[in-house]
Amino acid sequence: MPRFALLIEYDGSPFAGWQRQVNGPSVQGAIEAALARLEPGEHLLAAAGRTDTGVHGTGQVAHIDLSRDWDPFRLLEALNAHLRPAPVAIRAVAQVADDFHARFSALERRYLYRILNRRAPPVLERGRVWHVKSRLDLAAMEEAATHLVGNHDFTTFRSTYCQANSPVKTLDEISFSTIGEEIHVRLRARSFLHNQVRSIMGSLVQVGHATWSPDDMARALAARDRRACGPVAPPQGLCLTGVSYPDDPFADLG
Amino acid sequence: MPRFALLIEYDGSPFAGWQRQVNGPSVQGAIEAALARLEPGEHLLAAAGRTDTGVHGTGQVAHIDLSRDWDPFRLLEALNAHLRPAPVAIRAVAQVADDFHARFSALERRYLYRILNRRAPPVLERGRVWHVKSRLDLAAMEEAATHLVGNHDFTTFRSTYCQANSPVKTLDEISFSTIGEEIHVRLRARSFLHNQVRSIMGSLVQVGHATWSPDDMARALAARDRRACGPVAPPQGLCLTGVSYPDDPFADLG
Repeated sequence: MPRFALLIEYDGSPFAGWQRQVNGPSVQGAIEAALARLEPGEHLLAAAGRTDTGVHGTGQVAHIDLSRDWDPFRLLEALNAHLRPAPVAIRAVAQVADDFHARFSALERRYLYRILNRRAPPVLERGRVWHVKSRLDLAAMEEAATHLVGNHDFTTFRSTYCQANSPVKTLDEISFSTIGEEIHVRLRARSFLHNQVRSIMGSLVQVGHATWSPDDMARALAARDRRACGPVAPPQGLCLTGVSYPDDPFADLG
Repeated sequence: MPRFALLIEYDGSPFAGWQRQVNGPSVQGAIEAALARLEPGEHLLAAAGRTDTGVHGTGQVAHIDLSRDWDPFRLLEALNAHLRPAPVAIRAVAQVADDFHARFSALERRYLYRILNRRAPPVLERGRVWHVKSRLDLAAMEEAATHLVGNHDFTTFRSTYCQANSPVKTLDEISFSTIGEEIHVRLRARSFLHNQVRSIMGSLVQVGHATWSPDDMARALAARDRRACGPVAPPQGLCLTGVSYPDDPFADLG
């Protein structure tokens, strides 16, 4: 059975997350339903990141085994036709080797968290940003973030429901940029714990409001205690923007 | 009566354009209704650009005379509270001199037109971009655009409903940038004719598809004939991003 990798974009707003649910719509369920229109039967997509309710994706990657030897372009077009009008699109399709696994082969996940930092409510970016009304001290947030980069026990910044075996992860990057009234925070790691990005973001905003000092972030991390975490940031500001593999399945697609 | 300038963002999707209508919701009508909650009676907003149905704004400017000597910050907060849940936000408020006129004092209008150039349909940017599926030749479009910069008779690129006295305008800039799968086209002029940006964009996409050569754009302009225009581009890709004045009313607001 040929294996295909899919590059996926979705608006997380109407979904109860990536993962198929008994109750409630999921991104995985929407794509598996579209696949069932092409090849009858059950389909099981494996994805690089199981994003939460309301979290968006522009660079999610999943793989699927199909029985027919689909032309990738035709598969892309057919899936997008059957996905309509759900806010899910297949950006690219590539045939991959049988040992490619969207989750286990992944070397790196990249997330973007967007904050709209102004008094006025979001309009054009409604549902895409966390609206923070009072002015954030970006320099303090950047200083606090340096404490998190590297290999650490991230127990403080992980959901109590997290199923990962170990709370130790290596955070390779947290970088900040300002685009008009938005603050964009990009995070990069081999893998993340459940709620890790949103827990970090909520705590960084405590620093941005001077409720925490930048050094309080180091203390929160060292506490290795969930109760030391700031309020978890809302999901709509978060987006899975990309996943890296030893051989990029979509490299030839321009 | 003190005069106030408003900096306005709106999602054009649910509105029949900026201008107040007898039938159908308008951005102007939504803001005037919010103003009536603050000071009873009729209010008449004057705006820099009367954008069409479905066109967005991030930097629209309008002015209004009020009877009370409002603190600008309190006026901003009150208007945004009363505008909810309409997708309209007041980004800034400034008190201005009595001779400030949002439309007649404006020295420059700036528009952004966004094209999503990929096979997959738009998801996160749905309603914010023109989806063009086949690959556009950006270099050809840039070459064609150079013919439009400067002082010209833009009869070809103006709606037959345009009420401007003269079809002669000076287009100061058309510049292109690529952001991921999007093409952003920025246009700058003292003022624009009705449908001028969308007429230009539709014709530029003819060039991008090699249906027209870059020189065909010069021929279309020289024809001074509406029938020489390409298909008008859809409204949802267009956004009024800014207006300039001799003294920027919002300069002190950070």
